[in-house]
Amino acid sequence: MRGKIMKVIQSPQNKQVKEWKKLATKKGRQKQKAYLLDGWHLVKEALAKSIIIKELLVTSDFKYLDELTSLNKDQHEIISISDEVAKVLSETPSPQGVFAVVALEPAAQPPLQGAWLMLDAVQDPGNIGTMVRTADAAGFTGVIFGDGTADIYQPKVVRAMQGSQFHISLLAGPLDEWVQKFSAQQVPVYGTELNPAARPYNKLGKHQNFALIMGNEGNGMSQQILKRTTANLYIPIIGHAESLNVAVAAGILMFQLKA
Amino acid sequence: MRGKIMKVIQSPQNKQVKEWKKLATKKGRQKQKAYLLDGWHLVKEALAKSIIIKELLVTSDFKYLDELTSLNKDQHEIISISDEVAKVLSETPSPQGVFAVVALEPAAQPPLQGAWLMLDAVQDPGNIGTMVRTADAAGFTGVIFGDGTADIYQPKVVRAMQGSQFHISLLAGPLDEWVQKFSAQQVPVYGTELNPAARPYNKLGKHQNFALIMGNEGNGMSQQILKRTTANLYIPIIGHAESLNVAVAAGILMFQLKA
Repeated sequence: MRGKIMKVIQSPQNKQVKEWKKLATKKGRQKQKAYLLDGWHLVKEALAKSIIIKELLVTSDFKYLDELTSLNKDQHEIISISDEVAKVLSETPSPQGVFAVVALEPAAQPPLQGAWLMLDAVQDPGNIGTMVRTADAAGFTGVIFGDGTADIYQPKVVRAMQGSQFHISLLAGPLDEWVQKFSAQQVPVYGTELNPAARPYNKLGKHQNFALIMGNEGNGMSQQILKRTTANLYIPIIGHAESLNVAVAAGILMFQLKA
Repeated sequence: MRGKIMKVIQSPQNKQVKEWKKLATKKGRQKQKAYLLDGWHLVKEALAKSIIIKELLVTSDFKYLDELTSLNKDQHEIISISDEVAKVLSETPSPQGVFAVVALEPAAQPPLQGAWLMLDAVQDPGNIGTMVRTADAAGFTGVIFGDGTADIYQPKVVRAMQGSQFHISLLAGPLDEWVQKFSAQQVPVYGTELNPAARPYNKLGKHQNFALIMGNEGNGMSQQILKRTTANLYIPIIGHAESLNVAVAAGILMFQLKA
């Protein structure tokens, strides 16, 4: 029976499709304790890891069904969906025809060592996902999503993370509490708000243990959190641009600071 | 008469609106020799600079009309448009109610000195615009859009550049020819394709004069151009991400290499 398709869903009006669609909202994800992976790259990585998969969805012309069934060692249910259903579920204009409904498990909190990125009310899901991906590439331990930041499992965040949620710790909560925890362990916390006391980002050397906070695209960091930082860093602008994109700035800072 | 609104256009079906809408396509921009600026930040900068403005468009509830008319020293025509027309012209879900139709003038080619970014078939307009903005911030002289790269004045590129087209030189053309020009002047050209001969990006020191090439998001750089580079650079990935977003990688490289 392994790898067999047991169920076929053709209509976007199907009750099950409506439940899957709710996974695009935070409320729906919390209620179902699951989120949706869209695309072969992500589904393949989930199958290769010990990720709890609730269902696998494939369209009839999905090219890698053999590879999927051979990777599906735990015999997760495979459901055949129509192209119309795939269109309804996907954020992309041309879906790849494969999805996984994946369990949202409470994140285990690792020790606050290594390098951490904290997001203070960052809005744009593409920026957020890109920062998680960059933190992963730079060898960071994790990313903490502060209040007012888009949800970790928002579809556009998931798309931009490109699987980095499987590689590093993703936590959420009020950042002032996290800053206190880092400070209590003598881990330096670097803010990124340009103010008269800010220090050029490339004069601090490399660090094993530190936390870096990136603020909101328009308004920067909250003043309350800023007060608690060890130091504030800035990237000197040489030309005439007013600012850097937050994900680009985060990339420059992470690769500069990480030992 | 200065600053007076002389014309009112209510219907998205209006012939003039259809012409403006064509500015979203490369063909339309080339035919009309113009492109569209969307939003107060960009329009204000165009008014402050010696940019040739053909028309200014404002909705009836545009908040900064007084400031716009006082900045409009050259008495460019101001046309009142309805909210429906603004919606049709804008790429954003909530347009700010101000646009400028700006002349596309042939770019003067500055001497090939300073730092240059070259884009080899980069696809995503958001990435492209962000790289132009970052090149501006890093003090680069200009950006060269190679063949296969999205057009300089594509609306989403313009939006992401955030006005940097007014600050640095933007050129276009076949990159192999540009690489030859740089090489003829002994300007080093750095490629960014991971291959056995690639060098870590942070071991080269800082440079006044150089060119940096970023490749296509999926396929990297063209082999033909790669052969002509002075050296190829890579950013070591420490974690488990497969790659960096191209705009993030460009930001890290530009700020690292620029003297």
